[in-house]
Amino acid sequence: MLSEMLENVRVRRPLIHNITNYVTVNDCANILLACGGSPIMADDADEAEEITSICDGLNINIGTLNSRTIPSMFAAGKRANELGHPVILDPVGAGASKLRTETALRLIEEVKFAVIRGNISEIKALALGNASAKGVDADDEDKITADSLDSAVAFAKDFAARTGSVIVISGAVDIAADSRRAYCIRNGHEDMSRITGTGCQLSAMTAAYIAANQGNELEAAAAAACAMGLCGEIAKRRMTAQDGNSSYRGYIIDAIYNLTPDELERGAKYEMR
Amino acid sequence: MLSEMLENVRVRRPLIHNITNYVTVNDCANILLACGGSPIMADDADEAEEITSICDGLNINIGTLNSRTIPSMFAAGKRANELGHPVILDPVGAGASKLRTETALRLIEEVKFAVIRGNISEIKALALGNASAKGVDADDEDKITADSLDSAVAFAKDFAARTGSVIVISGAVDIAADSRRAYCIRNGHEDMSRITGTGCQLSAMTAAYIAANQGNELEAAAAAACAMGLCGEIAKRRMTAQDGNSSYRGYIIDAIYNLTPDELERGAKYEMR
Amino acid sequence: MLSEMLENVRVRRPLIHNITNYVTVNDCANILLACGGSPIMADDADEAEEITSICDGLNINIGTLNSRTIPSMFAAGKRANELGHPVILDPVGAGASKLRTETALRLIEEVKFAVIRGNISEIKALALGNASAKGVDADDEDKITADSLDSAVAFAKDFAARTGSVIVISGAVDIAADSRRAYCIRNGHEDMSRITGTGCQLSAMTAAYIAANQGNELEAAAAAACAMGLCGEIAKRRMTAQDGNSSYRGYIIDAIYNLTPDELERGAKYEMR
Repeated sequence: MLSEMLENVRVRRPLIHNITNYVTVNDCANILLACGGSPIMADDADEAEEITSICDGLNINIGTLNSRTIPSMFAAGKRANELGHPVILDPVGAGASKLRTETALRLIEEVKFAVIRGNISEIKALALGNASAKGVDADDEDKITADSLDSAVAFAKDFAARTGSVIVISGAVDIAADSRRAYCIRNGHEDMSRITGTGCQLSAMTAAYIAANQGNELEAAAAAACAMGLCGEIAKRRMTAQDGNSSYRGYIIDAIYNLTPDELERGAKYEMR
Repeated sequence: MLSEMLENVRVRRPLIHNITNYVTVNDCANILLACGGSPIMADDADEAEEITSICDGLNINIGTLNSRTIPSMFAAGKRANELGHPVILDPVGAGASKLRTETALRLIEEVKFAVIRGNISEIKALALGNASAKGVDADDEDKITADSLDSAVAFAKDFAARTGSVIVISGAVDIAADSRRAYCIRNGHEDMSRITGTGCQLSAMTAAYIAANQGNELEAAAAAACAMGLCGEIAKRRMTAQDGNSSYRGYIIDAIYNLTPDELERGAKYEMR
Repeated sequence: MLSEMLENVRVRRPLIHNITNYVTVNDCANILLACGGSPIMADDADEAEEITSICDGLNINIGTLNSRTIPSMFAAGKRANELGHPVILDPVGAGASKLRTETALRLIEEVKFAVIRGNISEIKALALGNASAKGVDADDEDKITADSLDSAVAFAKDFAARTGSVIVISGAVDIAADSRRAYCIRNGHEDMSRITGTGCQLSAMTAAYIAANQGNELEAAAAAACAMGLCGEIAKRRMTAQDGNSSYRGYIIDAIYNLTPDELERGAKYEMR
């Protein structure tokens, strides 16, 4: 019942605290508003705990982490845990630098995450200490294919079991898995990787879906991933010959804004493994 | 004569120094260019005073304030006061954390603001020490209705008298007030609240209007609020079934770009109280 | 053979490390993706050297430089030099504050830049110690006209000789010069100056062109400038009466996305001096 997941976002309008990078932060704010949630950004240690206290969920994205904001991530994450607010981790660029890999691993150790969402290279860097990431994009060698899907699902379930988090791996096929079940999601379009921040946007939106659907973390995360992919398809169909990645970016957020629970239910393409 | 206020922005092309949040900063820069002004962003204490010296006005927005930028706000604000440059305060999220409320209150104590602009919850947090803000959006309980408009106007005039600033309260009805007179502005569309940063954009644009119309602070602030609301209406009429908040955001800036002084004069809907 | 320059970007997909301002960073990321490159943003001293090591080029933009990011610029720049990665400098606002002018001059002293790109006021501030910049835009007095083009070309070649960098001066006529030859580029549209960050975007894109065409720095920089100007023209033709600077911004990135090497070759308008 993916439609219910979206309905609950629209009705409950969860307020999401974002400690995120300055590259895609505006898109994260607008997609949160588009899906029915509400964003607040605050990254100073002097207010991170207090801000997260008035919110319904927390989205930690390490895309442009720095010495000033890292302590805020830990402080907000721990406070959110104490209050029972769901916390999402987007380990942008894990594997690309020690600072990113180690910060993400320490976060996972000290904060309980409802969802960890990244591309396959980032998740591998965290699960296997395998640092093959090419910047913030998945390395070609890591990419999930039809042949490697079963092993990727097993890998995701295993990492979910070890962390107690729902693991979302974005790619040609998205995987959303807990320790027992995995959604293999075939929505989306390859050109989404030509826009900066579709992953960051999905993480922010996932925070809203999770916050509005506590107790249904796996379904909520899968619904958010289906919504993002489906809106990537809807937006793609809207494109004219003159449009490029800038218009595509805006069309996706527009599609999230207009997406109905019923359209999500009908448009979601996934199987369970 | 709201049209003159805009004409003066177009002719004088005021350069506005912005110390603002990283969420909506690009939109603030583009709306300043759209209305006829020119933006510069600089938030380091090592240059804040010098940058503000070459500008015509200063816009301080505490949306993602931090330990490094707060001192820059004070330094730039005081220097702008010395030079007679108008200074605008957008107390984003005042009431949502002690850091925000106290920083905004200290700023009001130590810097003379030409205009303070926020939503009703933010302004109440500053005027009454009433911290009911739900994040960066106005709390439903605070919202101004037909019934409460008279008392909101009295409240705005009172806070204007105490601070010596023009007070702009954004909402379904916008109020722009000094201690004696208030514009009650009925431009705008409720969907503007589904875009991140329309308030931030109005604050940045208000800085340009004030800088180009010194001595006419109330009229200039009212003109900027009318322009923003009117362009929200114009942009709304442009929307197709596929458009959402992302397109709406761009259409509003486009409309500000194309707005003529005459259209502003004819389209502004307000009464004085 | 400007077309080859673009073809190489598309084939080699250079990964560009950006230490850049938070105003236009999203546009820089999207234009890098649009042209065929790939962006990563990282500005903390604890990872700047490591991130630049996995990249193909480095883009340093001082648009919102601060005490935390300045050391990262030096560290990343020196490391990129050691590795033979091309480094680009965009001295945004040089001349507008001591911090900007002195940081840019120190960077030029300590880091070897493949390209330095700015407007005429910024480049003059660095070459002549002439601080006439009006904020981040070129001062009217400095602007290059038909009469002053020859002397501007001589100035650019001289500064190129002194720095060993290709110098790109953006304006009504763009100049891309090494110590011996200069492209005088007549692509572009004056309304591009009504969008924030077209200069920043060109610098980011230039980094991708240079990284994909090592040994051909002058041609690569000229090709990037022609591409930006040409796409400014293409985007301008796409505009409707309702469009303004926000739509124009998106249309330019879209045009970069759709630009073919052949269109670049045919549309580039330049002469050598």
